[in-house]
Amino acid sequence: MLILKVNKRSEIPLFKQVFERIKELIEQGVLKPGDKLPSSRDMAVHLGVHRSTVYKAYEELWAFGYIDSRPGSYSIVREREELATLEKRAQEGIIPWNEICTPLVDDMLKFIDEATKEKTTSPDTINLAMLDLDPRIFPVDDFRKCLNGVLVDDGARLLTYGDAQGYRPLREAIAKRLQIHSIEVAADEIMITNGAQHGLETILKLLIEPGNKVLIESPTYAIVIPLMQFYRSQLLPIPMREEGLDLAYLRKTLEKEKASFLYTMPNFHNPTGISTNQAHREELLALCEEHKLPIVEDAFEEEMKYFGKVPLPLKSMDKKQIVIYLGTFSKVLFPGIRVGWIAAEKECIKRLVAIRKVSDLSSNMPLQAALAEFCEKGHYELHVKRMHRIFRKRMQTALKAMKDYITVENVSWTEPTGGYLIWLHLKNCPLKEERVHDLLLKNGVLVVPGRFYFPTRPKDPYYRLSIASLDEDEIKTGVQRIAKTMEKIYK
Amino acid sequence: MLILKVNKRSEIPLFKQVFERIKELIEQGVLKPGDKLPSSRDMAVHLGVHRSTVYKAYEELWAFGYIDSRPGSYSIVREREELATLEKRAQEGIIPWNEICTPLVDDMLKFIDEATKEKTTSPDTINLAMLDLDPRIFPVDDFRKCLNGVLVDDGARLLTYGDAQGYRPLREAIAKRLQIHSIEVAADEIMITNGAQHGLETILKLLIEPGNKVLIESPTYAIVIPLMQFYRSQLLPIPMREEGLDLAYLRKTLEKEKASFLYTMPNFHNPTGISTNQAHREELLALCEEHKLPIVEDAFEEEMKYFGKVPLPLKSMDKKQIVIYLGTFSKVLFPGIRVGWIAAEKECIKRLVAIRKVSDLSSNMPLQAALAEFCEKGHYELHVKRMHRIFRKRMQTALKAMKDYITVENVSWTEPTGGYLIWLHLKNCPLKEERVHDLLLKNGVLVVPGRFYFPTRPKDPYYRLSIASLDEDEIKTGVQRIAKTMEKIYK
Repeated sequence: MLILKVNKRSEIPLFKQVFERIKELIEQGVLKPGDKLPSSRDMAVHLGVHRSTVYKAYEELWAFGYIDSRPGSYSIVREREELATLEKRAQEGIIPWNEICTPLVDDMLKFIDEATKEKTTSPDTINLAMLDLDPRIFPVDDFRKCLNGVLVDDGARLLTYGDAQGYRPLREAIAKRLQIHSIEVAADEIMITNGAQHGLETILKLLIEPGNKVLIESPTYAIVIPLMQFYRSQLLPIPMREEGLDLAYLRKTLEKEKASFLYTMPNFHNPTGISTNQAHREELLALCEEHKLPIVEDAFEEEMKYFGKVPLPLKSMDKKQIVIYLGTFSKVLFPGIRVGWIAAEKECIKRLVAIRKVSDLSSNMPLQAALAEFCEKGHYELHVKRMHRIFRKRMQTALKAMKDYITVENVSWTEPTGGYLIWLHLKNCPLKEERVHDLLLKNGVLVVPGRFYFPTRPKDPYYRLSIASLDEDEIKTGVQRIAKTMEKIYK
Repeated sequence: MLILKVNKRSEIPLFKQVFERIKELIEQGVLKPGDKLPSSRDMAVHLGVHRSTVYKAYEELWAFGYIDSRPGSYSIVREREELATLEKRAQEGIIPWNEICTPLVDDMLKFIDEATKEKTTSPDTINLAMLDLDPRIFPVDDFRKCLNGVLVDDGARLLTYGDAQGYRPLREAIAKRLQIHSIEVAADEIMITNGAQHGLETILKLLIEPGNKVLIESPTYAIVIPLMQFYRSQLLPIPMREEGLDLAYLRKTLEKEKASFLYTMPNFHNPTGISTNQAHREELLALCEEHKLPIVEDAFEEEMKYFGKVPLPLKSMDKKQIVIYLGTFSKVLFPGIRVGWIAAEKECIKRLVAIRKVSDLSSNMPLQAALAEFCEKGHYELHVKRMHRIFRKRMQTALKAMKDYITVENVSWTEPTGGYLIWLHLKNCPLKEERVHDLLLKNGVLVVPGRFYFPTRPKDPYYRLSIASLDEDEIKTGVQRIAKTMEKIYK
């Protein structure tokens, strides 16, 4: 008979004490595989405890694999599989993940590693690379109160699975807000997504079979390139001109190629900052209508028309329903809530919702409800106005500084009519793009090298400058440092 | 000269009045395409307003596409593209979405339409179909306070883009919690997902090339079937036996087939409720190690071991790092926050994170931070204990009622050791599955027909019963109604 002791005055529950003592005996090898434990009745008598205490301890031993026990039978010590603790487990497992994963993943990994490679910056570096909004201007408190309020009022419901199409009051608020931009869509024609990029991915799932062709602008939003490649689509780049994507080039391409859709950013294009004019938009729409080509209109900065002069979104004129419109709160409110949306014809939305149901079921409910409340209470509109005031001044400061300080003839840049982005072009540059980038950094300013935005590397160096996270002083200093670097390069 | 009037005492801003009046004149055809508007200077004099007011009105007219204007030139009325209002736009667009979308989407749509077809239920119907948790037991208030607290303390940061791998303190809290289940992983070996299903999808992105084979249990979680088909994988079903997936069958399959991974639910399997025993797990793990086959262990109800007796998770014994472990808060806390996780070898996690970056960037931050706080403050542990008390009684009630009321010899069911699911089997049934389902509903009880869980329809009718959203009285009534229906069918 085993001799065990329990301490009835200990804070540790009795069954735990019994469990621990027997576990120790097994681990020390005192009890060996095949040994029988006393019946729970005998053990209870021996320890002077209730039988249920022993029963519970035996259950724990079984759960952790120390004993075998079948109803009515004795409990037998078993050869227990060792736990895979950090020490016990192989440094490297037996699955060669790099070999068994789809080759597309390693391409993606390479792209991301390169694009997000940390550069050594000093605390003094001006970061003109980040398109993340300046957190200093987030309306945190109003949003927090809305979030808290909806959970007080309707918490239990907001914590259940939501509508895969998105929380209806939020879809209604978005439909209402889109009217400001002359877009008239019903809440049924909107699906909420986890950000605009997730929206684009869902559209790829809908429309892309491996090998299908997609028309993109060149340059375009950097992550679009590996994303579309991951969906095994073939990219057909349409060059960007000063006035937007080259319509003549697009027309010719459409005459010889069958594409699944065109991906375009008519406002404050990423990375160039270019917005197309009204005539360009009408011609683009007519051309795509003629070819029955769906347009994915990425309107990630639709709200940031702070200089006023901005033509109509493609979606606002989309009488033949070929436009799939992507929106987001990330570039005007905050990105950490991951809420964007797709507006498209009902038959298209219906299929996107089916994809959501099979993919990740739905977006989270509490943040959607808080956003709906935030819009309904008027906070959103006020915030947009505030953003306009702030960024109108910041962009004016940036453009004025560029004009004042950058005097090298070969260096030119776009003059955006809103948004956050300026695109710098270095003609006849004696240095390579990477080298200029390093020099800029050495002079205390971080920008994004242009090559990440092109499907194939361009001849000249380009750099994307973003004013999204900087105040006017920082912008001015950043531009001065760029100017100084340009002078050195071209001297 | 046009004659316009403005009302200087109106609440409507002057520029808006000018804008509206000119817009009307254009829409009424008084002003025609090609007509010149007066210069802003002349118009200002005519109206007796400041020139900037007119300038702003002209900007609005330009933005909405009513006039062309170039710097220094007069403004000219243009042929404006009509807005695509709900009335003006085609009832049906020109894109045949059903034809251009990938054929996989329409298969998916069909599956979802059928699986989620609303049955007419009366208010009195007992819903044994829902695996959604009972919202009456959600710890709404504690969670709300955590959420509000983290936003008070650290709001601005929590509203920026988060770490694509997931909010680190939450990964740490999960790593700590997994120790309860004998699983030792580091925070680096965890990636947060938008629920367990989203985790599975991300794994498919990592491992599946079109045509690859995946081993699944048959029956299995219903949505897994269309999801895996959407990723163009070929399903290799392994039959479920009373003790879990058929190991001999798996062994034979592995001898002739090369599969990308095995998807399995060792605990409280969906839909059968079966848990495998310790020996089964050890054998399964050894077999897959031998074939270097990754195992995706879906542990969606790991926390719900309320009867105590549950063997070790595969991951806890995974010394050779072949197990990708899927966890979630949806089936123990609440699903509306959409938070789950993947625990796997670092090299595997690294690639999953790259996929996230290209796919949807990251999960939302505020809900992750609130969960981390909820765990750290001990609310989570207390809640799980409460859930155990509640569902131990509910499952006991269900199983007792089944035994007491269902006396038809041909009807059998599983006896789960935790979780929410019971699997009903009707041998030699004179009626088809659909017919029995209708009869059950007529008798006031809704269950899920078994066919949705099989890649190919089984001979006998099966039904999944879930106690997740019902209290003891409701469960008892539901079982009584099932018993009554069974008697009628087999009489």
